[in-house]
Amino acid sequence: MARIPRSHPRYESLLVRERLVGGFEQGLVAKEGLMAHGRGEAFDYLLGERTGAAPKRAIRAAAAQLLAAGRPVISVNGNAAALCPKQLVALSRLTGASLEVNLFYSTPGRKRAILGALKRAGAKSVLGADPSKSARLGGTDSARRVVDRDGIYAADVVLVPLEDGDRTAALKRAGKKVITFDLNPLSRTARAADITIVDNITRGMELLVSECKRLKGRERAAQGALAGFENKANLARSVSQIRGNLARRAGHA
Amino acid sequence: MARIPRSHPRYESLLVRERLVGGFEQGLVAKEGLMAHGRGEAFDYLLGERTGAAPKRAIRAAAAQLLAAGRPVISVNGNAAALCPKQLVALSRLTGASLEVNLFYSTPGRKRAILGALKRAGAKSVLGADPSKSARLGGTDSARRVVDRDGIYAADVVLVPLEDGDRTAALKRAGKKVITFDLNPLSRTARAADITIVDNITRGMELLVSECKRLKGRERAAQGALAGFENKANLARSVSQIRGNLARRAGHA
Repeated sequence: MARIPRSHPRYESLLVRERLVGGFEQGLVAKEGLMAHGRGEAFDYLLGERTGAAPKRAIRAAAAQLLAAGRPVISVNGNAAALCPKQLVALSRLTGASLEVNLFYSTPGRKRAILGALKRAGAKSVLGADPSKSARLGGTDSARRVVDRDGIYAADVVLVPLEDGDRTAALKRAGKKVITFDLNPLSRTARAADITIVDNITRGMELLVSECKRLKGRERAAQGALAGFENKANLARSVSQIRGNLARRAGHA
Repeated sequence: MARIPRSHPRYESLLVRERLVGGFEQGLVAKEGLMAHGRGEAFDYLLGERTGAAPKRAIRAAAAQLLAAGRPVISVNGNAAALCPKQLVALSRLTGASLEVNLFYSTPGRKRAILGALKRAGAKSVLGADPSKSARLGGTDSARRVVDRDGIYAADVVLVPLEDGDRTAALKRAGKKVITFDLNPLSRTARAADITIVDNITRGMELLVSECKRLKGRERAAQGALAGFENKANLARSVSQIRGNLARRAGHA
Protein backbone atom coordinates (compact mmCIF):
# COMPACT_ATOMS: atom_id res chain seq x y z
CA MET A 1 0.00 0.00 0.00
CA ALA A 2 1.20 3.51 -0.77
CA ARG A 3 2.59 5.65 2.05
CA ILE A 4 -0.18 7.80 3.52
CA PRO A 5 0.49 11.55 3.80
CA ARG A 6 -0.42 12.96 7.25
CA SER A 7 -2.40 15.70 5.52
CA HIS A 8 -4.86 13.19 4.06
CA PRO A 9 -8.38 13.94 5.35
CA ARG A 10 -8.78 10.29 6.31
CA TYR A 11 -5.32 9.69 7.82
CA GLU A 12 -6.38 7.81 10.99
CA SER A 13 -8.79 5.61 9.12
CA LEU A 14 -6.15 4.79 6.49
CA LEU A 15 -3.61 3.81 9.19
CA VAL A 16 -6.08 1.34 10.69
CA ARG A 17 -6.75 0.03 7.21
CA GLU A 18 -3.03 -0.60 6.75
CA ARG A 19 -2.90 -2.54 10.01
CA LEU A 20 -5.73 -4.75 8.76
CA VAL A 21 -4.05 -5.29 5.38
CA GLY A 22 -0.92 -6.27 7.33
CA GLY A 23 -3.04 -8.80 9.23
CA PHE A 24 -4.35 -10.14 5.92
CA GLU A 25 -0.81 -10.60 4.62
CA GLN A 26 0.16 -12.45 7.81
CA GLY A 27 -2.78 -14.82 7.37
CA LEU A 28 -4.84 -13.55 10.33
CA VAL A 29 -7.58 -11.82 8.37
CA ALA A 30 -9.89 -13.43 5.80
CA LYS A 31 -10.95 -11.80 2.52
CA GLU A 32 -14.40 -11.50 4.04
CA GLY A 33 -12.77 -9.74 6.99
CA LEU A 34 -11.43 -7.05 4.65
CA MET A 35 -14.95 -6.43 3.34
CA ALA A 36 -16.41 -6.45 6.84
CA HIS A 37 -13.85 -3.82 7.81
CA GLY A 38 -15.03 -1.67 4.90
CA ARG A 39 -18.60 -1.89 6.17
CA GLY A 40 -17.38 -0.81 9.59
CA GLU A 41 -15.47 2.11 8.08
CA ALA A 42 -18.63 3.39 6.43
CA PHE A 43 -20.59 3.32 9.67
CA ASP A 44 -17.71 4.86 11.61
CA TYR A 45 -17.57 7.68 9.05
CA LEU A 46 -21.30 8.26 9.55
CA LEU A 47 -20.82 8.25 13.33
CA GLY A 48 -18.18 10.98 13.00
CA GLU A 49 -15.20 8.69 13.71
CA ARG A 50 -15.28 9.40 17.42
CA THR A 51 -16.61 7.62 20.49
CA GLY A 52 -19.86 9.34 21.41
CA ALA A 53 -21.87 9.27 24.63
CA ALA A 54 -23.80 6.12 23.68
CA PRO A 55 -20.77 3.83 23.20
CA LYS A 56 -19.15 5.29 26.33
CA ARG A 57 -22.23 4.27 28.31
CA ALA A 58 -22.11 0.76 26.78
CA ILE A 59 -18.40 0.47 27.57
CA ARG A 60 -19.07 1.25 31.24
CA ALA A 61 -21.80 -1.38 31.40
CA ALA A 62 -19.58 -3.90 29.56
CA ALA A 63 -16.73 -3.38 32.01
CA ALA A 64 -19.11 -3.91 34.94
CA GLN A 65 -20.56 -7.04 33.32
CA LEU A 66 -17.12 -8.54 32.66
CA LEU A 67 -15.90 -7.79 36.19
CA ALA A 68 -19.04 -9.35 37.71
CA ALA A 69 -18.89 -12.49 35.56
CA GLY A 70 -18.10 -15.94 36.94
CA ARG A 71 -16.65 -17.37 33.71
CA PRO A 72 -16.09 -14.59 31.20
CA VAL A 73 -14.67 -15.39 27.75
CA ILE A 74 -13.35 -13.08 25.03
CA SER A 75 -14.01 -14.54 21.58
CA VAL A 76 -11.28 -13.51 19.14
CA ASN A 77 -11.51 -13.42 15.36
CA GLY A 78 -8.95 -12.38 12.73
CA ASN A 79 -9.91 -8.71 12.51
CA ALA A 80 -9.83 -8.25 16.29
CA ALA A 81 -6.46 -10.00 16.55
CA ALA A 82 -5.04 -7.82 13.76
CA LEU A 83 -6.40 -4.53 15.10
CA CYS A 84 -6.02 -4.70 18.89
CA PRO A 85 -4.14 -7.79 20.15
CA LYS A 86 -2.55 -6.00 23.14
CA GLN A 87 -5.87 -4.62 24.35
CA LEU A 88 -7.43 -8.10 24.12
CA VAL A 89 -4.67 -9.54 26.28
CA ALA A 90 -4.86 -6.65 28.78
CA LEU A 91 -8.62 -7.07 29.06
CA SER A 92 -8.25 -10.80 29.63
CA ARG A 93 -5.76 -10.17 32.48
CA LEU A 94 -7.86 -7.47 34.16
CA THR A 95 -11.12 -9.43 34.10
CA GLY A 96 -9.82 -13.01 34.35
CA ALA A 97 -11.53 -13.77 31.02
CA SER A 98 -10.20 -16.56 28.82
CA LEU A 99 -9.24 -15.76 25.25
CA GLU A 100 -10.79 -18.12 22.68
CA VAL A 101 -10.11 -18.08 18.95
CA ASN A 102 -13.42 -18.61 17.17
CA LEU A 103 -13.77 -18.03 13.44
CA PHE A 104 -16.57 -17.73 10.92
CA TYR A 105 -14.26 -18.55 8.00
CA SER A 106 -12.07 -21.06 9.79
CA THR A 107 -8.93 -22.76 8.52
CA PRO A 108 -6.21 -24.38 10.65
CA GLY A 109 -3.66 -21.92 9.24
CA ARG A 110 -5.68 -18.88 10.18
CA LYS A 111 -6.30 -20.25 13.67
CA ARG A 112 -2.58 -20.77 14.16
CA ALA A 113 -1.76 -17.27 12.87
CA ILE A 114 -4.25 -15.68 15.28
CA LEU A 115 -2.96 -17.78 18.17
CA GLY A 116 0.56 -16.62 17.34
CA ALA A 117 -0.47 -12.96 17.26
CA LEU A 118 -2.13 -13.25 20.69
CA LYS A 119 0.91 -15.02 22.15
CA ARG A 120 3.22 -12.31 20.76
CA ALA A 121 0.95 -9.73 22.40
CA GLY A 122 1.58 -11.45 25.75
CA ALA A 123 -1.22 -14.04 26.07
CA LYS A 124 -0.24 -16.99 28.31
CA SER A 125 -2.94 -19.38 27.13
CA VAL A 126 -5.50 -19.25 24.35
CA LEU A 127 -8.46 -21.60 23.91
CA GLY A 128 -10.09 -22.78 20.69
CA ALA A 129 -7.21 -24.60 19.06
CA ASP A 130 -7.52 -28.05 20.66
CA PRO A 131 -10.03 -30.24 18.73
CA SER A 132 -10.21 -32.76 21.59
CA LYS A 133 -11.81 -30.05 23.72
CA SER A 134 -14.45 -28.95 21.23
CA ALA A 135 -18.19 -28.78 21.93
CA ARG A 136 -21.10 -27.61 19.76
CA LEU A 137 -23.45 -24.70 20.25
CA GLY A 138 -26.96 -25.34 18.89
CA GLY A 139 -28.80 -23.03 16.51
CA THR A 140 -26.11 -22.00 14.05
CA ASP A 141 -24.62 -23.91 11.15
CA SER A 142 -21.43 -21.98 10.62
CA ALA A 143 -18.00 -23.19 11.68
CA ARG A 144 -18.40 -20.92 14.66
CA ARG A 145 -20.72 -23.32 16.42
CA VAL A 146 -17.63 -25.36 17.35
CA VAL A 147 -16.47 -23.87 20.63
CA ASP A 148 -14.16 -24.85 23.46
CA ARG A 149 -15.76 -26.96 26.19
CA ASP A 150 -13.94 -24.97 28.89
CA GLY A 151 -14.34 -21.66 27.09
CA ILE A 152 -17.41 -20.24 25.34
CA TYR A 153 -19.40 -23.43 25.98
CA ALA A 154 -19.14 -23.00 29.75
CA ALA A 155 -19.08 -19.19 29.86
CA ASP A 156 -21.68 -16.98 31.51
CA VAL A 157 -20.53 -13.77 29.79
CA VAL A 158 -19.04 -13.68 26.28
CA LEU A 159 -17.47 -10.66 24.62
CA VAL A 160 -17.75 -11.15 20.86
CA PRO A 161 -16.17 -8.31 18.95
CA LEU A 162 -17.35 -8.04 15.31
CA GLU A 163 -19.89 -10.83 15.38
CA ASP A 164 -22.25 -12.51 12.91
CA GLY A 165 -26.01 -12.24 13.56
CA ASP A 166 -26.86 -15.96 13.69
CA ARG A 167 -24.10 -16.61 16.11
CA THR A 168 -25.12 -13.90 18.52
CA ALA A 169 -28.62 -15.38 18.58
CA ALA A 170 -27.17 -18.85 19.27
CA LEU A 171 -25.13 -17.53 22.19
CA LYS A 172 -28.23 -15.86 23.60
CA ARG A 173 -30.26 -19.07 23.26
CA ALA A 174 -27.49 -20.89 25.11
CA GLY A 175 -28.14 -18.55 28.03
CA LYS A 176 -25.03 -16.37 27.77
CA LYS A 177 -24.83 -12.66 28.43
CA VAL A 178 -23.45 -11.25 25.18
CA ILE A 179 -21.35 -8.10 24.85
CA THR A 180 -20.46 -7.07 21.31
CA PHE A 181 -18.73 -4.38 19.26
CA ASP A 182 -20.77 -3.51 16.18
CA LEU A 183 -20.61 -0.25 14.26
CA ASN A 184 -24.03 -0.86 12.69
CA PRO A 185 -26.59 -0.04 15.40
CA LEU A 186 -29.35 -1.68 13.31
CA SER A 187 -27.67 -5.05 12.75
CA ARG A 188 -29.11 -8.30 14.06
CA THR A 189 -26.10 -8.67 16.35
CA ALA A 190 -26.50 -5.15 17.71
CA ARG A 191 -30.14 -5.83 18.52
CA ALA A 192 -29.68 -9.37 19.89
CA ALA A 193 -26.77 -8.63 22.25
CA ASP A 194 -27.21 -7.54 25.86
CA ILE A 195 -24.63 -4.78 25.57
CA THR A 196 -23.69 -3.39 22.15
CA ILE A 197 -20.74 -1.04 21.87
CA VAL A 198 -21.34 0.94 18.67
CA ASP A 199 -17.75 2.01 18.23
CA ASN A 200 -14.63 1.35 16.24
CA ILE A 201 -12.87 -1.52 18.01
CA THR A 202 -9.51 0.30 17.83
CA ARG A 203 -10.90 3.14 19.96
CA GLY A 204 -13.46 1.21 22.00
CA MET A 205 -11.26 -1.69 23.14
CA GLU A 206 -8.74 0.75 24.57
CA LEU A 207 -11.52 2.53 26.47
CA LEU A 208 -12.92 -0.78 27.71
CA VAL A 209 -9.53 -1.67 29.19
CA SER A 210 -9.33 1.73 30.95
CA GLU A 211 -12.85 1.36 32.29
CA CYS A 212 -12.09 -2.11 33.69
CA LYS A 213 -9.04 -0.67 35.45
CA ARG A 214 -11.13 2.15 36.89
CA LEU A 215 -14.02 -0.05 38.10
CA LYS A 216 -11.95 -2.96 39.40
CA GLY A 217 -12.46 -3.32 43.13
CA ARG A 218 -15.27 -0.73 43.07
CA GLU A 219 -18.10 -3.25 42.81
CA ARG A 220 -20.88 -0.89 43.83
CA ALA A 221 -20.11 1.74 41.18
CA ALA A 222 -19.77 -1.06 38.63
CA GLN A 223 -23.17 -2.50 39.47
CA GLY A 224 -24.76 0.93 39.14
CA ALA A 225 -23.40 1.34 35.61
CA LEU A 226 -24.82 -2.04 34.68
CA ALA A 227 -28.24 -1.67 36.33
CA GLY A 228 -28.95 1.62 34.59
CA PHE A 229 -28.05 0.36 31.12
CA GLU A 230 -30.76 -0.28 28.51
CA ASN A 231 -29.38 -1.58 25.19
CA LYS A 232 -32.31 -0.73 22.89
CA ALA A 233 -32.49 2.87 24.08
CA ASN A 234 -28.73 3.16 23.74
CA LEU A 235 -28.79 1.83 20.15
CA ALA A 236 -31.46 4.40 19.32
CA ARG A 237 -29.00 7.10 20.47
CA SER A 238 -26.40 5.89 17.95
CA VAL A 239 -28.99 5.87 15.17
CA SER A 240 -29.88 9.46 16.08
CA GLN A 241 -26.24 10.40 16.01
CA ILE A 242 -25.88 9.07 12.46
CA ARG A 243 -29.04 10.86 11.36
CA GLY A 244 -27.80 14.11 12.86
CA ASN A 245 -24.38 13.80 11.20
CA LEU A 246 -26.01 13.11 7.83
CA ALA A 247 -28.19 16.19 8.11
CA ARG A 248 -25.26 18.34 9.21
CA ARG A 249 -22.91 17.17 6.49
CA ALA A 250 -25.55 17.38 3.78
CA GLY A 251 -26.20 20.97 4.91
CA HIS A 252 -22.50 21.85 4.54
CA ALA A 253 -22.09 20.07 1.20
CA MET B 1 -16.52 -19.11 0.64
CA ALA B 2 -19.39 -21.20 2.02
CA ARG B 3 -22.48 -21.84 -0.15
CA ILE B 4 -25.13 -19.22 0.57
CA PRO B 5 -28.63 -20.45 1.43
CA ARG B 6 -31.36 -18.64 -0.60
CA SER B 7 -33.22 -18.02 2.66
CA HIS B 8 -30.41 -15.80 3.99
CA PRO B 9 -31.75 -12.28 4.65
CA ARG B 10 -28.84 -10.83 2.68
CA TYR B 11 -28.78 -13.34 -0.22
CA GLU B 12 -28.39 -10.84 -3.13
CA SER B 13 -25.71 -8.88 -1.36
CA LEU B 14 -23.80 -12.09 -0.54
CA LEU B 15 -23.91 -13.23 -4.18
CA VAL B 16 -22.37 -9.94 -5.33
CA ARG B 17 -19.76 -10.33 -2.59
CA GLU B 18 -18.88 -13.77 -3.97
CA ARG B 19 -18.44 -12.31 -7.44
CA LEU B 20 -16.01 -9.76 -6.05
CA VAL B 21 -14.07 -12.41 -4.12
CA GLY B 22 -13.88 -14.35 -7.40
CA GLY B 23 -12.43 -11.23 -9.02
CA PHE B 24 -9.89 -10.98 -6.20
CA GLU B 25 -8.83 -14.59 -6.73
CA GLN B 26 -8.41 -13.96 -10.47
CA GLY B 27 -6.17 -10.96 -9.73
CA LEU B 28 -8.62 -8.26 -10.91
CA VAL B 29 -9.48 -6.82 -7.52
CA ALA B 30 -7.03 -5.31 -4.99
CA LYS B 31 -7.23 -5.87 -1.24
CA GLU B 32 -8.23 -2.24 -0.98
CA GLY B 33 -11.00 -3.01 -3.48
CA LEU B 34 -12.44 -5.60 -1.09
CA MET B 35 -12.58 -2.98 1.66
CA ALA B 36 -14.06 -0.38 -0.68
CA HIS B 37 -16.76 -2.89 -1.56
CA GLY B 38 -17.57 -3.29 2.12
CA ARG B 39 -18.01 0.47 2.44
CA GLY B 40 -20.36 0.38 -0.53
CA GLU B 41 -22.33 -2.49 1.00
CA ALA B 42 -22.93 -0.46 4.15
CA PHE B 43 -24.26 2.52 2.22
CA ASP B 44 -26.37 0.28 -0.04
CA TYR B 45 -27.87 -1.32 3.06
CA LEU B 46 -28.75 2.13 4.39
CA LEU B 47 -30.27 3.06 1.02
CA GLY B 48 -32.53 0.00 1.22
CA GLU B 49 -30.62 -2.00 -1.45
CA ARG B 50 -32.81 -0.73 -4.26
CA THR B 51 -32.49 1.95 -6.93
CA GLY B 52 -34.57 4.90 -5.76
CA ALA B 53 -35.89 7.92 -7.65
CA ALA B 54 -32.70 9.96 -7.19
CA PRO B 55 -30.30 7.49 -8.85
CA LYS B 56 -32.86 6.85 -11.61
CA ARG B 57 -32.85 10.58 -12.38
CA ALA B 58 -29.02 10.62 -12.39
CA ILE B 59 -28.94 7.58 -14.69
CA ARG B 60 -31.20 9.36 -17.21
CA ALA B 61 -28.94 12.42 -17.16
CA ALA B 62 -25.82 10.25 -17.45
CA ALA B 63 -27.21 8.43 -20.48
CA ALA B 64 -28.01 11.76 -22.14
CA GLN B 65 -24.53 13.12 -21.32
CA LEU B 66 -22.78 10.05 -22.71
CA LEU B 67 -24.87 10.07 -25.92
CA ALA B 68 -24.19 13.78 -26.45
CA ALA B 69 -20.43 13.47 -25.84
CA GLY B 70 -17.84 13.94 -28.58
CA ARG B 71 -15.14 11.74 -26.99
CA PRO B 72 -16.63 9.78 -24.11
CA VAL B 73 -14.43 7.40 -22.10
CA ILE B 74 -15.38 4.74 -19.54
CA SER B 75 -12.66 4.39 -16.90
CA VAL B 76 -12.50 0.81 -15.62
CA ASN B 77 -11.03 -0.39 -12.33
CA GLY B 78 -10.82 -3.87 -10.82
CA ASN B 79 -14.09 -3.81 -8.91
CA ALA B 80 -16.07 -2.59 -11.93
CA ALA B 81 -14.46 -5.23 -14.17
CA ALA B 82 -15.24 -7.97 -11.64
CA LEU B 83 -18.84 -6.89 -11.00
CA CYS B 84 -20.22 -5.83 -14.41
CA PRO B 85 -17.86 -6.46 -17.35
CA LYS B 86 -20.66 -7.18 -19.84
CA GLN B 87 -22.54 -4.00 -19.00
CA LEU B 88 -19.34 -1.96 -19.41
CA VAL B 89 -18.81 -3.41 -22.88
CA ALA B 90 -22.48 -2.91 -23.86
CA LEU B 91 -22.33 0.70 -22.68
CA SER B 92 -19.16 1.31 -24.66
CA ARG B 93 -20.83 -0.04 -27.85
CA LEU B 94 -24.04 1.95 -27.41
CA THR B 95 -22.34 5.28 -26.73
CA GLY B 96 -19.14 4.91 -28.75
CA ALA B 97 -17.15 5.40 -25.54
CA SER B 98 -13.66 3.94 -25.27
CA LEU B 99 -12.88 1.62 -22.36
CA GLU B 100 -9.73 2.55 -20.44
CA VAL B 101 -8.20 0.58 -17.59
CA ASN B 102 -7.12 3.06 -14.92
CA LEU B 103 -6.11 1.90 -11.46
CA PHE B 104 -5.43 3.46 -8.09
CA TYR B 105 -3.41 0.46 -6.89
CA SER B 106 -1.78 -0.39 -10.21
CA THR B 107 0.39 -3.37 -11.05
CA PRO B 108 1.07 -4.75 -14.53
CA GLY B 109 -0.49 -8.08 -13.53
CA ARG B 110 -3.72 -6.48 -12.37
CA LYS B 111 -3.93 -4.39 -15.54
CA ARG B 112 -3.53 -7.51 -17.65
CA ALA B 113 -6.16 -9.41 -15.67
CA ILE B 114 -8.69 -6.58 -16.09
CA LEU B 115 -7.91 -6.29 -19.78
CA GLY B 116 -8.50 -10.02 -20.13
CA ALA B 117 -11.84 -9.84 -18.30
CA LEU B 118 -13.04 -7.03 -20.58
CA LYS B 119 -11.94 -8.92 -23.71
CA ARG B 120 -13.74 -12.05 -22.51
CA ALA B 121 -16.85 -9.91 -22.02
CA GLY B 122 -16.64 -8.92 -25.71
CA ALA B 123 -14.50 -5.75 -25.76
CA LYS B 124 -12.69 -5.25 -29.09
CA SER B 125 -10.13 -2.74 -27.85
CA VAL B 126 -9.20 -1.43 -24.42
CA LEU B 127 -6.98 1.58 -23.69
CA GLY B 128 -4.67 2.12 -20.73
CA ALA B 129 -2.21 -0.73 -21.22
CA ASP B 130 0.25 0.80 -23.68
CA PRO B 131 2.95 2.82 -21.83
CA SER B 132 4.06 4.53 -25.07
CA LYS B 133 0.66 6.25 -25.21
CA SER B 134 0.58 7.51 -21.62
CA ALA B 135 0.01 11.14 -20.60
CA ARG B 136 -0.24 12.78 -17.17
CA LEU B 137 -3.19 14.52 -15.58
CA GLY B 138 -2.21 17.35 -13.22
CA GLY B 139 -3.42 17.69 -9.64
CA THR B 140 -3.21 14.15 -8.32
CA ASP B 141 -0.22 12.11 -7.21
CA SER B 142 -1.65 8.61 -7.36
CA ALA B 143 -0.87 6.12 -10.12
CA ARG B 144 -4.16 7.13 -11.62
CA ARG B 145 -2.78 10.36 -13.00
CA VAL B 146 -1.18 8.29 -15.77
CA VAL B 147 -3.87 8.14 -18.46
CA ASP B 148 -4.04 7.24 -22.13
CA ARG B 149 -3.29 10.10 -24.52
CA ASP B 150 -6.16 9.03 -26.82
CA GLY B 151 -8.45 8.08 -23.94
CA ILE B 152 -9.12 9.96 -20.70
CA TYR B 153 -6.55 12.65 -21.58
CA ALA B 154 -8.49 13.71 -24.69
CA ALA B 155 -12.00 12.91 -23.42
CA ASP B 156 -14.78 15.46 -22.94
CA VAL B 157 -16.96 13.14 -20.83
CA VAL B 158 -15.54 10.49 -18.45
CA LEU B 159 -17.55 7.85 -16.63
CA VAL B 160 -15.58 6.86 -13.53
CA PRO B 161 -17.33 4.15 -11.56
CA LEU B 162 -16.13 3.86 -7.94
CA GLU B 163 -13.69 6.76 -7.94
CA ASP B 164 -11.23 8.35 -5.53
CA GLY B 165 -11.90 11.95 -4.43
CA ASP B 166 -8.57 13.51 -5.53
CA ARG B 167 -8.88 11.99 -8.92
CA THR B 168 -12.38 13.26 -9.54
CA ALA B 169 -11.18 16.77 -8.67
CA ALA B 170 -8.23 16.38 -11.09
CA LEU B 171 -10.57 15.32 -13.90
CA LYS B 172 -12.78 18.32 -13.21
CA ARG B 173 -9.79 20.70 -13.25
CA ALA B 174 -8.78 19.20 -16.60
CA GLY B 175 -12.15 20.40 -17.93
CA LYS B 176 -13.92 17.02 -18.19
CA LYS B 177 -17.57 16.35 -17.50
CA VAL B 178 -17.47 13.63 -14.84
CA ILE B 179 -20.12 10.97 -14.29
CA THR B 180 -19.59 8.67 -11.32
CA PHE B 181 -21.13 5.83 -9.35
CA ASP B 182 -20.73 6.39 -5.63
CA LEU B 183 -22.90 4.91 -2.89
CA ASN B 184 -21.83 7.58 -0.41
CA PRO B 185 -23.77 10.73 -1.32
CA LEU B 186 -21.52 12.80 0.97
CA SER B 187 -18.16 11.75 -0.48
CA ARG B 188 -15.78 14.19 -2.14
CA THR B 189 -16.27 12.34 -5.43
CA ALA B 190 -20.06 12.49 -5.15
CA ARG B 191 -19.90 16.24 -4.58
CA ALA B 192 -17.23 17.03 -7.20
CA ALA B 193 -18.76 15.08 -10.08
CA ASP B 194 -21.26 16.58 -12.53
CA ILE B 195 -23.56 13.57 -12.35
CA THR B 196 -23.39 11.20 -9.38
CA ILE B 197 -25.31 7.94 -9.51
CA VAL B 198 -25.82 6.93 -5.88
CA ASP B 199 -26.51 3.30 -6.61
CA ASN B 200 -24.97 -0.15 -6.47
CA ILE B 201 -23.00 -0.54 -9.68
CA THR B 202 -24.47 -4.01 -10.27
CA ARG B 203 -27.99 -2.55 -10.46
CA GLY B 204 -27.16 0.92 -11.82
CA MET B 205 -24.91 -0.09 -14.72
CA GLU B 206 -27.63 -2.37 -16.07
CA LEU B 207 -30.13 0.51 -15.88
CA LEU B 208 -27.67 2.89 -17.52
CA VAL B 209 -27.34 0.50 -20.48
CA SER B 210 -31.16 0.29 -20.81
CA GLU B 211 -31.50 4.06 -20.62
CA CYS B 212 -28.88 4.56 -23.36
CA LYS B 213 -30.82 2.12 -25.57
CA ARG B 214 -34.05 4.00 -24.90
CA LEU B 215 -32.65 7.50 -25.51
CA LYS B 216 -30.44 6.67 -28.49
CA GLY B 217 -31.70 8.57 -31.55
CA ARG B 218 -34.11 10.60 -29.39
CA GLU B 219 -31.79 13.55 -28.90
CA ARG B 220 -34.46 15.99 -27.78
CA ALA B 221 -35.76 13.80 -24.94
CA ALA B 222 -32.15 13.13 -23.94
CA GLN B 223 -31.28 16.82 -23.76
CA GLY B 224 -34.36 17.48 -21.63
CA ALA B 225 -33.22 14.85 -19.07
CA LEU B 226 -29.81 16.50 -18.91
CA ALA B 227 -30.95 20.13 -18.75
CA GLY B 228 -33.28 19.49 -15.81
CA PHE B 229 -30.65 17.67 -13.73
CA GLU B 230 -29.10 19.30 -10.67
CA ASN B 231 -26.49 17.11 -8.93
CA LYS B 232 -26.44 18.79 -5.49
CA ALA B 233 -30.22 18.65 -5.12
CA ASN B 234 -30.20 15.06 -6.28
CA LEU B 235 -27.52 14.08 -3.72
CA ALA B 236 -29.63 15.70 -1.00
CA ARG B 237 -32.46 13.32 -2.00
CA SER B 238 -30.23 10.29 -1.41
CA VAL B 239 -29.16 11.65 2.00
CA SER B 240 -32.85 12.07 2.88
CA GLN B 241 -33.53 8.53 1.79
CA ILE B 242 -30.85 7.19 4.14
CA ARG B 243 -32.14 9.31 7.01
CA GLY B 244 -35.68 8.07 6.40
CA ASN B 245 -34.58 4.43 6.27
CA LEU B 246 -32.63 4.83 9.52
CA ALA B 247 -35.64 6.28 11.29
CA ARG B 248 -37.95 3.59 9.95
CA ARG B 249 -35.63 0.69 10.84
CA ALA B 250 -34.84 2.06 14.27
CA GLY B 251 -38.58 2.34 14.88
CA HIS B 252 -39.11 -1.33 14.00
CA ALA B 253 -36.13 -2.54 15.97
